[in-house]
Amino acid sequence: MKVFTEIPELKKFLKSQRMTAAREGKELQVGLVPTMGYLHEGHASLLRKSRAENDLVVLSIFVNPIQFGPNEDLDRYPRDAERDLALAEREGVDAVLMPSVEEMYPQPIRTKVAVAELTSLLCGASRPGHFDGVTTVVSKLFHIVSPQRAYFGQKDAQQVAVVARMVKDLNFDVEIVPCPIVRESDGLALSSRNVYLSTEQRAAALVLSRSLKQLEAEVSSGKSITTGEAKGQLFHHIGSEPLAEIDYVEMVAFPSMEPLQEANSLNSELEAHGGILAAVAVKFGATRLIDNVLLTRKGEAIHV
Amino acid sequence: MKVFTEIPELKKFLKSQRMTAAREGKELQVGLVPTMGYLHEGHASLLRKSRAENDLVVLSIFVNPIQFGPNEDLDRYPRDAERDLALAEREGVDAVLMPSVEEMYPQPIRTKVAVAELTSLLCGASRPGHFDGVTTVVSKLFHIVSPQRAYFGQKDAQQVAVVARMVKDLNFDVEIVPCPIVRESDGLALSSRNVYLSTEQRAAALVLSRSLKQLEAEVSSGKSITTGEAKGQLFHHIGSEPLAEIDYVEMVAFPSMEPLQEANSLNSELEAHGGILAAVAVKFGATRLIDNVLLTRKGEAIHV
Repeated sequence: MKVFTEIPELKKFLKSQRMTAAREGKELQVGLVPTMGYLHEGHASLLRKSRAENDLVVLSIFVNPIQFGPNEDLDRYPRDAERDLALAEREGVDAVLMPSVEEMYPQPIRTKVAVAELTSLLCGASRPGHFDGVTTVVSKLFHIVSPQRAYFGQKDAQQVAVVARMVKDLNFDVEIVPCPIVRESDGLALSSRNVYLSTEQRAAALVLSRSLKQLEAEVSSGKSITTGEAKGQLFHHIGSEPLAEIDYVEMVAFPSMEPLQEANSLNSELEAHGGILAAVAVKFGATRLIDNVLLTRKGEAIHV
Repeated sequence: MKVFTEIPELKKFLKSQRMTAAREGKELQVGLVPTMGYLHEGHASLLRKSRAENDLVVLSIFVNPIQFGPNEDLDRYPRDAERDLALAEREGVDAVLMPSVEEMYPQPIRTKVAVAELTSLLCGASRPGHFDGVTTVVSKLFHIVSPQRAYFGQKDAQQVAVVARMVKDLNFDVEIVPCPIVRESDGLALSSRNVYLSTEQRAAALVLSRSLKQLEAEVSSGKSITTGEAKGQLFHHIGSEPLAEIDYVEMVAFPSMEPLQEANSLNSELEAHGGILAAVAVKFGATRLIDNVLLTRKGEAIHV
């Protein structure tokens, strides 16, 4: 496994690998897994999928300052390069890019890649500028690595939708591969930010997966409720947990991220949109967690 | 010469050309000349430079609606596909992309690539949103063609600076090659929009190149004037032409597009910034023309 801190060195490496394959008449398939490090089993699942589908796997680890708001946790975001590299090695990663902030932003960045409308709700509403930072850094990584495929966790469902829309709108030659949320055995969605939680907060945080799971079960049992009722139920369920401070509870069409008609039945909205994302963001103390479930028409896959 | 109206067909062609070269151990060098058509000798000079520097030359012809303001000349922008293709053939172009608006924008585009600060003056100020449209469509074309080099006329000097900044900020793997302004023998800068001019307007429009040339001569003769005086002189010179309606007369650092200190001498600003762009936009009747001169320290080239 090669570890790069400098972008030109990674590009040189990728170019030589591509030329070697091309001389044999093959197009080297490159998979990119962009992360902010402090890797967990969710990231590992992205790496394994990328390993299975590509000749060469690139992992990027970069805590991207421009996707954090002024009062967010940029400075205390957890980091552990040594453990990350050990995990990457175990998962068969070929190349790791771990650039410094100066390497990624050698001069003040004046250029912004921004996706409108899909970013107006959920985390787009509660973290202004967050998705501009994401789409801008993802554009940079796509240009540096030129992957055929890029892997994103469905835990950040809005991010998946936004990046996929950017790819279509700007004709990026890359396939966005969303991967299922990975959970602890008790249901807590894996997140690098879980490390912030106290024992009590961690126990309280289970309300997220429990409430989403209950909604999913109701929908798949065929129960008829309106989207407004479904949302109210999530709100009530999470709100009954004393340590939970709700940032948002939302249900939107996926991947368009369009708002739903609250008076309509969930089933009719499912018929109309194909996919409905129930997504929540909730603070436990200073730690903001997100979780979601993607509701679909029976057995249907959603393509972003 | 191959002519493509569909993006996937062009991509297939480029991929097969690249694979053929790669099998022989070579990296196919691709040059892109993005245009809005109605080609003239200025475009031809870009094509010739691209022809000389690359294995394969791609010309794109697309009147990009999103870079036109609501009251601008999108609908009457001149078009002549047949003549354009004949010129392209003469200049040895390998592939032409002439997509429809539906092919470039199959769904409403939600994604915008925007460069701040460099777009706050000159055409950025008088054509709000114009450069966002340019950088967005240029991003699309770069992703479609993946050229090693892209050629832009220095007549749109701010466009050159803005696109070059976008390339650096977003790590695009392409070299921006600016090419000198091409002029008629009497000094008029070539522009597809010159076709709009009446005989009287065309004669009046010579004041642009005349006033810029005079400024350039004064600076290279070593005359000591302030940037404020130089600007005032341009303003006065152009304003004395009855048919000229000034949109802007500006002097800025190039390629940073930063404003200058008007009280400072032009020579000290040249020392400080390396390059100074004197740029004008002037309407003759309904036709808005732009022209500029790039002042540099003696004999120095400016790199964008």
